[in-house]
Amino acid sequence: MEEKATIKKVVILGATGSIGTQTVDVIKQLEGFKVVGISFGSNIEQARKIMEDLKIDYYVSNKDVGFGKRFENTQQLLEEVVPDIVVCAIPGFEGVKATIIALQYAKRIALATKEALVCAGPFVKKVAKEKDVEIIPVDSEHSAIFQLYEPHIEKILITASGGAVRDVPLKYIADLKPSDILKHPTWSMGGRITVDSSTMVNKLFEVIEAHELFDLDYDRIEVKINRSSFIHGIVFLKDGVIKIHAGKPDMRIPIAYALTYPERKYHSPVADVLEFDLQLSDVERERYPLFFYGLDMLKRKDDLPWRIALNAADELAVNAFLDGKISFKGIETVVRETIEYIDSQNIIITSIEDVYKTDELAKSYAKEFIEREVRK
Amino acid sequence: MEEKATIKKVVILGATGSIGTQTVDVIKQLEGFKVVGISFGSNIEQARKIMEDLKIDYYVSNKDVGFGKRFENTQQLLEEVVPDIVVCAIPGFEGVKATIIALQYAKRIALATKEALVCAGPFVKKVAKEKDVEIIPVDSEHSAIFQLYEPHIEKILITASGGAVRDVPLKYIADLKPSDILKHPTWSMGGRITVDSSTMVNKLFEVIEAHELFDLDYDRIEVKINRSSFIHGIVFLKDGVIKIHAGKPDMRIPIAYALTYPERKYHSPVADVLEFDLQLSDVERERYPLFFYGLDMLKRKDDLPWRIALNAADELAVNAFLDGKISFKGIETVVRETIEYIDSQNIIITSIEDVYKTDELAKSYAKEFIEREVRK
Repeated sequence: MEEKATIKKVVILGATGSIGTQTVDVIKQLEGFKVVGISFGSNIEQARKIMEDLKIDYYVSNKDVGFGKRFENTQQLLEEVVPDIVVCAIPGFEGVKATIIALQYAKRIALATKEALVCAGPFVKKVAKEKDVEIIPVDSEHSAIFQLYEPHIEKILITASGGAVRDVPLKYIADLKPSDILKHPTWSMGGRITVDSSTMVNKLFEVIEAHELFDLDYDRIEVKINRSSFIHGIVFLKDGVIKIHAGKPDMRIPIAYALTYPERKYHSPVADVLEFDLQLSDVERERYPLFFYGLDMLKRKDDLPWRIALNAADELAVNAFLDGKISFKGIETVVRETIEYIDSQNIIITSIEDVYKTDELAKSYAKEFIEREVRK
Repeated sequence: MEEKATIKKVVILGATGSIGTQTVDVIKQLEGFKVVGISFGSNIEQARKIMEDLKIDYYVSNKDVGFGKRFENTQQLLEEVVPDIVVCAIPGFEGVKATIIALQYAKRIALATKEALVCAGPFVKKVAKEKDVEIIPVDSEHSAIFQLYEPHIEKILITASGGAVRDVPLKYIADLKPSDILKHPTWSMGGRITVDSSTMVNKLFEVIEAHELFDLDYDRIEVKINRSSFIHGIVFLKDGVIKIHAGKPDMRIPIAYALTYPERKYHSPVADVLEFDLQLSDVERERYPLFFYGLDMLKRKDDLPWRIALNAADELAVNAFLDGKISFKGIETVVRETIEYIDSQNIIITSIEDVYKTDELAKSYAKEFIEREVRK
């Protein structure tokens, strides 16, 4: 009985996505963790494989895998299994809702869903504090800063690879096709995040997340390009010391750390630093206009309504781009228009319900805007 | 009265050297530290300036500065002032003896004297453990590893600048003059250490120190060139994470850390990482033959007699080189001959007195060897 008590019970929300499947990979290699439940969207084949492989009995889905116990929603699953750790890896705004629910039931959230802090940072943090839940970031950049964190930080730096557009002559970028954009140079990730890497909206989200996680003003968060994605994050301390977090671009490393923190139980071969490009360079303003638009906005006015609009519009715009409905440049147009619309509404957000409503409002605006563009 | 109790009393051994004067610099900028005593060699003018500047009453020297209280030796000084921290910055083998004495009186040793761990590592560590004295490294490389240290280390890496010979065509190196060698590319340091940077004997010492400080086998300590001296040390963790310690080459930063650890109280402007060269490269075997001779020796047979001989012979050889008595290549000859002589004596070291005797034996051999060479 005592041995069993040391096993940490894990629920993976979004188990069939990129982070979800890599979490499964990691847990198979770690001792002391047991996946007791998963949630997934449409990939029933993958879900069935995971459940068989890890002998998982409980799941949340609209679809029936044919064995185990199915729940209608995440809350019911979490009530039943009482997990130690919930890995929040549901992409998109659905991930916000799932994170808010998970905070009620877990002792630790391994947070991969960027949207949770972008759209609802203050609420997520408030509930985590009240319920004494640890939020451990899974993103490689935030895991890096989390691992380097100590008092007396002057500023931090997170890196970007520059995505698929980084070497494309500027004049061709506007018309790049999904097939061009989906070739990410360093990370193997899901579709939306790969597009978001090319617009660097992804990095904009990460700047907001870093601001929320580490309570740092935006002028203390820098972004530079590291082409190899070998450097993930840097902290600059007040005494002049600089600590750099590096390693192969492999999400299993930060996933494992979020599970095993404060210990390191995962094993991964030592990289040869001579093989990697450690050099950093500036982000070009003309190449990533949406990123700089957002950064300027953040420094001027950091409030939730336009952050929610940013995410909502980007989610729809990226899908429209991947579906061939709008151009690459069109993503920027949809996002900026939606942000400006929401910004003009003078919305005041005082509850998580307001967050959900604002997301709906932004999405309905973005949806109509995209449809108008398509009809043009 | 209570306020006074929080002031840390510091003694600087070797106050007029490069580390000593930079320690004075640092303490003038820090709150909560008071230099209560110093020791120095021949630079009486500098010593007088420091004592007046910091209102120091106690000192150890053969010379009389004309005010304050003079002691014959370090032990008497330390007995009188009962310091919290002793900064051991006496170069050469004298530093070993001073460190051994300081361990009896201080709660913390800020250790700059490389010879202490090279020649007497096991004894220094034993006394420190018995007396519960903290040994905090001052060397930038070891301070870096100390600051990054955590469990689950797979290996560490310390960097070398390559010294003044790094870009000299190989065929010219043997005959370089002191004036060529004393132009260190990145660090501003004392004479012997600048020569030791060119032979990389300095880095050999640092490998030994790292082995003693962090209890790592020699095959888990790597050395690479970083031309800018911007990267000081790297730890490779078992999960694939790499942490890099960087910053401007400024000894005041690690000195301050050794004083204020575990806090950071020193302020130094944030460096622009884009300005520095983060690239690492291999150390060339033909360029640094003495370094590789020592490394091979360490991996084969790590015992104190030859480490003591290495230091003793190098000390005399570097002085002979700086005095124009032997060539740059001659340093290697003196060191290798002396090590081989001591190695053939089958000395067994069981006490600190044995360390002192072996040093004397090695020095008398090296001295005679140099004189014979000069007469040739």
